[in-house]
Amino acid sequence: MLTVNAYAAASADARLEPVTITRRDLGPHDVLIAIAYAGVCHSDIHTVREDWGPVTHPLVVGHEIVGIVAEVGSAVTKHAVGDRVGVGCLVNSCRTCENCLAGEEQYCVNGATGTYGSVDADGTITQGGYSTHVVVTEDFVLRVPESLDYAAVAPLLCAGITTYSPLRHWNAGPGTKVAVVGLGGLGHMAVKLAHAMGAEVTVLSRSLSKQPDAAALGADHYFATEDPQTFAQLANSFDLIVNTVSAPLDLDAYLALLRLDGTMVNVGAPPQALPIHVFTLFGNRRSFAGSSIGGIRETQEMLDFCAEHGIVPDTELIDASYLNEAWDRVLASDVRYRFVVDAATFA
Amino acid sequence: MLTVNAYAAASADARLEPVTITRRDLGPHDVLIAIAYAGVCHSDIHTVREDWGPVTHPLVVGHEIVGIVAEVGSAVTKHAVGDRVGVGCLVNSCRTCENCLAGEEQYCVNGATGTYGSVDADGTITQGGYSTHVVVTEDFVLRVPESLDYAAVAPLLCAGITTYSPLRHWNAGPGTKVAVVGLGGLGHMAVKLAHAMGAEVTVLSRSLSKQPDAAALGADHYFATEDPQTFAQLANSFDLIVNTVSAPLDLDAYLALLRLDGTMVNVGAPPQALPIHVFTLFGNRRSFAGSSIGGIRETQEMLDFCAEHGIVPDTELIDASYLNEAWDRVLASDVRYRFVVDAATFA
Repeated sequence: MLTVNAYAAASADARLEPVTITRRDLGPHDVLIAIAYAGVCHSDIHTVREDWGPVTHPLVVGHEIVGIVAEVGSAVTKHAVGDRVGVGCLVNSCRTCENCLAGEEQYCVNGATGTYGSVDADGTITQGGYSTHVVVTEDFVLRVPESLDYAAVAPLLCAGITTYSPLRHWNAGPGTKVAVVGLGGLGHMAVKLAHAMGAEVTVLSRSLSKQPDAAALGADHYFATEDPQTFAQLANSFDLIVNTVSAPLDLDAYLALLRLDGTMVNVGAPPQALPIHVFTLFGNRRSFAGSSIGGIRETQEMLDFCAEHGIVPDTELIDASYLNEAWDRVLASDVRYRFVVDAATFA
Repeated sequence: MLTVNAYAAASADARLEPVTITRRDLGPHDVLIAIAYAGVCHSDIHTVREDWGPVTHPLVVGHEIVGIVAEVGSAVTKHAVGDRVGVGCLVNSCRTCENCLAGEEQYCVNGATGTYGSVDADGTITQGGYSTHVVVTEDFVLRVPESLDYAAVAPLLCAGITTYSPLRHWNAGPGTKVAVVGLGGLGHMAVKLAHAMGAEVTVLSRSLSKQPDAAALGADHYFATEDPQTFAQLANSFDLIVNTVSAPLDLDAYLALLRLDGTMVNVGAPPQALPIHVFTLFGNRRSFAGSSIGGIRETQEMLDFCAEHGIVPDTELIDASYLNEAWDRVLASDVRYRFVVDAATFA
């Protein structure tokens, strides 16, 4: 076993502090990654704070990981020492259920193994990317194109794929009108990706404060949702609404913005039940859907798409010692648009 | 104007009584239909009882109409005197919005004209099929195939198309698993149609009481939803769930029965908001949708499909004088599966 440095909280309400954890010895199909950068996702905070249920503390979070292959197991064929690689939200799955066989491991019927907080095959709890090193089975390690800005690329592994997957699944592209609700870590990626796919992109954000940002990210239109006129003006407008907001919002009001056969897909994860009127769905044969990250094949496709289009997230690079302040700022929506930790500072 | 006999209630809580109403003189594109049979839909009751909002009484309801063309306007080309025809839930629409141009008049952005209770082009309130005659513009009059049992065919115009349309839209057919929730007027048509399309059909009904009926209608499987085991046993099973129940039910419990990319579509119309957890939708990338009747082109397609497969509803033929008792029995779910009024008894 390898003992490595990491950051974790001792309890749900504790601050993040330096800790040491162990990584397993390399199995034949394992890859040891020397982490270079780790993105900070709102999910990290929800998980540690136990907003989504109890966890075993201390838990090392972080599921936006890029680094360099430092060592490979005896049977590894997909990656070689020195390769630039990434790890997202998944590190394994059953590989035998119908969803895994369809390449949609994120929907593994038997429960995919999350990058942190999941029970791994050896019975240990997986520990994430706020760390110097990680060991992952080769099939769940992605190739990171050399052309992408290495210090900024990490958030593609969660924020990127989480928005890319529904945009692809619901056919965003030339001739489609896509609305993005919320302009945070997920929202800003949704705008960049939908724009690169050729869709007409509208940002729906609470106030007008982020309008200049939205235009710079590639949005064609921008409306403030605190203005009730917005909902009257945009009725029956969109083919696809990607809702990145995790706070509860008035589903019926947003669904009414969909045109014929439009879908509103949530990637934001409000924990409480939200009320919905079936009559809103009757109009225009609307759908309300959910989408969760993406499979390994699609995540690689997303990385390659971003390389082709020169897309990386807008990031703020921080040291590990700044993590607690960074979390406070994420909770205050005070980041444009993703923190990335220099993993050298976990050491 | 033509004065005709009909049945209507004087107020939201009154009994249906014989009344006389007027039908407009035939315009150049109008068709006068001598009604032969009119189906009784639960929506008729909801509308008159003002469950869905206030209406102008007395209102003649009924939107499952079959009859014979008695007279045509000077410019009518689609129908001739003596033709067997039908009218469903729509008698007009704007014909210019993107949804009408797409042949989906039921989703007319400017509001389609319902067969009863809508404001018609001339400013009058449309009056439905519990009557001896009706005047409808030719484009909203359907051809009823001669091979279909004339006394039973009327409910296809609402219950038939309401279930046919989502089954087609969400690709029910060979290799797909379809669940039908509720075995009433809509549900029994959903089973017949999904079976004829080649899908594997499961009925989910409260108790086991309708199991023999379901098998006779063509269902492959049947489960009682009052048995909690049902929900564990059927998790991740269905490509499509057609929910015909208008009472509120536990959306999350039913959505969890959908497999990858499955959709639960409501054709039942609960007036109250229903709670839904986004986390349920994250699993298997599920969708919750609504579907409302069908367009004219698709309604004709449905009638032709039913003729090809020899499908008509299971009906109980009644006289107009029995309507109040029939409504009581509909409310008590005591009909297998649709009442049809012999329109001669409106006279």
